[in-house]
Amino acid sequence: MRDLKDQCWVLTEEDIDALEIGSGILGTGGGGNPYIGKLRARQALREGYELKVLPLNAIADEAMVVPLGGIGAPLVSFERLKEGREGLRCLRSLEERLGFKADAVACEEIGGQNSMEPLITGAFAGLPVVDGDGMGRAFPEMQMTTYSIYGHRSTPSVMCDPHGNAVAFENAITEKWHETMARACVIAQGGASVLASAPMSGAYVKRYSIPHTYTQAIGLGRAVMDARKTHSDPIAAICEREGGQHIFSGKINDLKRHFKGGFNVGVASIEGLDSYRGSIGQITIQNEYLMFERDGQMVTCVPDLVVVLDLDTGLPITTEILRYGQRIAVLALPCHELLRTPQALDVVGPACFGFPDVIYKPLAEAA
Amino acid sequence: MRDLKDQCWVLTEEDIDALEIGSGILGTGGGGNPYIGKLRARQALREGYELKVLPLNAIADEAMVVPLGGIGAPLVSFERLKEGREGLRCLRSLEERLGFKADAVACEEIGGQNSMEPLITGAFAGLPVVDGDGMGRAFPEMQMTTYSIYGHRSTPSVMCDPHGNAVAFENAITEKWHETMARACVIAQGGASVLASAPMSGAYVKRYSIPHTYTQAIGLGRAVMDARKTHSDPIAAICEREGGQHIFSGKINDLKRHFKGGFNVGVASIEGLDSYRGSIGQITIQNEYLMFERDGQMVTCVPDLVVVLDLDTGLPITTEILRYGQRIAVLALPCHELLRTPQALDVVGPACFGFPDVIYKPLAEAA
Repeated sequence: MRDLKDQCWVLTEEDIDALEIGSGILGTGGGGNPYIGKLRARQALREGYELKVLPLNAIADEAMVVPLGGIGAPLVSFERLKEGREGLRCLRSLEERLGFKADAVACEEIGGQNSMEPLITGAFAGLPVVDGDGMGRAFPEMQMTTYSIYGHRSTPSVMCDPHGNAVAFENAITEKWHETMARACVIAQGGASVLASAPMSGAYVKRYSIPHTYTQAIGLGRAVMDARKTHSDPIAAICEREGGQHIFSGKINDLKRHFKGGFNVGVASIEGLDSYRGSIGQITIQNEYLMFERDGQMVTCVPDLVVVLDLDTGLPITTEILRYGQRIAVLALPCHELLRTPQALDVVGPACFGFPDVIYKPLAEAA
Repeated sequence: MRDLKDQCWVLTEEDIDALEIGSGILGTGGGGNPYIGKLRARQALREGYELKVLPLNAIADEAMVVPLGGIGAPLVSFERLKEGREGLRCLRSLEERLGFKADAVACEEIGGQNSMEPLITGAFAGLPVVDGDGMGRAFPEMQMTTYSIYGHRSTPSVMCDPHGNAVAFENAITEKWHETMARACVIAQGGASVLASAPMSGAYVKRYSIPHTYTQAIGLGRAVMDARKTHSDPIAAICEREGGQHIFSGKINDLKRHFKGGFNVGVASIEGLDSYRGSIGQITIQNEYLMFERDGQMVTCVPDLVVVLDLDTGLPITTEILRYGQRIAVLALPCHELLRTPQALDVVGPACFGFPDVIYKPLAEAA
């Protein structure tokens, strides 16, 4: 391997602040609370570790890249802190098990705390994180990455909890079976662990990552920070950058939310405000915001992004901190084209979340 | 390793018939349906495989012995047949993972189908099964073996399901954590898998196995078969052989049984017959028969054995085939002394099954 060090982007505390906001927006409410993630990443930075992002085109084809992320329910990871080195234990166990040395870490999910998890593990391991991810957003299940969708077998994998328990999924006959077994096990482990999957080649990562999503998330966060500093509209700034639409404003007047099968699930009802006065919005939740309906009509659904922001500050609101009475803006952002193929829609379309009758109309094509 | 072949006892079809009955009795209603196990063992025998039992004193101290057994709910394994080579896949994966070759297989649980599982895997692998086990009966959870109780760390272990999924528990911080994670995962896999635990040394096996339980179970089965042939009383024959007591006869007049957390749980109420007319018996179930009460008084509880037999034939009845109207005999058999130490009672006493107020009075000491 050639030395990748000089091609890496070394993140600053300000980058992490921006990533908190950007990954919160792209997380569509899930992926783990980004504020908790930021505190952990900042702690690593202050202890002298380097958080490094490697441009996609700087990876050698033959590089060994380990995808990594937190698994569990955002609600749990919000309340129970990680021990900190779960990801590093996963990585080392996988390397030992398979007899290789990782060249870089890949992000499974840019949304929420899962944008920070690979950076933190990479920092402890002295490895960079590839500038891209497997979702371009957050999704509730592991098989929903472009890595899995386009043919990567994610087992053998290793999952570690904060206590020191470690489980290796040696073989799963399908990516969905991997998810099913890991989900059962993470619930037994208390609901918030880290999982590292089988390594991918650099060539595969370059071809099937959602590209440049660290750059995207940090840029998005900076745009919101800049808009707030200059008293301009952060919501407009987000829509402009991402080709998105502001589809609703309102106040949450009903919120059903519970913990089921290891997921946060629920429905939020929103009473329209401003130009939406008289309308009713509804958001369906499964760890993330899955779908938004206005007056009973489907407006935006997975895999496009339903983003919930604080109406005043423009800051993202994750599903576990959503509450009655909040005044929110709802945005629709188009997902990446790798999530819009028939192959992808078989795994991340509305039917995969229990809504077979919902027809996905890509926002990118409507625009 | 010296060649152990000539010291092995090679089982016949008649031995398997006897083992079905004997392991059914020692299984106290659980350990998986022994009839299904017998069919599988007989099939292996008829395909030309050898089912071999190795005397405990024939094992070298430095031998590597792999404990192995089915995990799940008896109810599931009764209805969903095994693929057949789950145990062999576990064994091979463990050998490859840890870089050793097994010299013998050990039985986790002599009760029920779990007496057959190591024999079948041993047959496919060309390995003998040690004449002993980790329970001397059946228990619902993995940490309840003498292997675990006296200090063996059962991880790394490998669990395989009929589909081809394989999970390795690389590290569990306690034996109970191993059980918790494996239980969650086996439910996800459909409720009936096989698990092979980390190898034990021959010296450890000799010291901490419940000894000679294959000999015991097969002898017990033969005694019942002989009694039935000669029209003498099989129930009396069992009590005499095992130092047990016939503690109730009656008809099942109420049966609450359900599937909870991966276990068969429930309560059976029995109306007394013969010398017990006018009395009411009650059996508490968690995969096995845990406790027997007569007219509200505790008579026998774990770790002593509560055995349920058909009143007419003397054949054992497992919890999943128990039904309203059955006429049964209830026997109490003393457990092995390795299960009666304070160390053991911390893991297999009544408190461990959710009955902290039940005081265990060893049958062996009362006799």
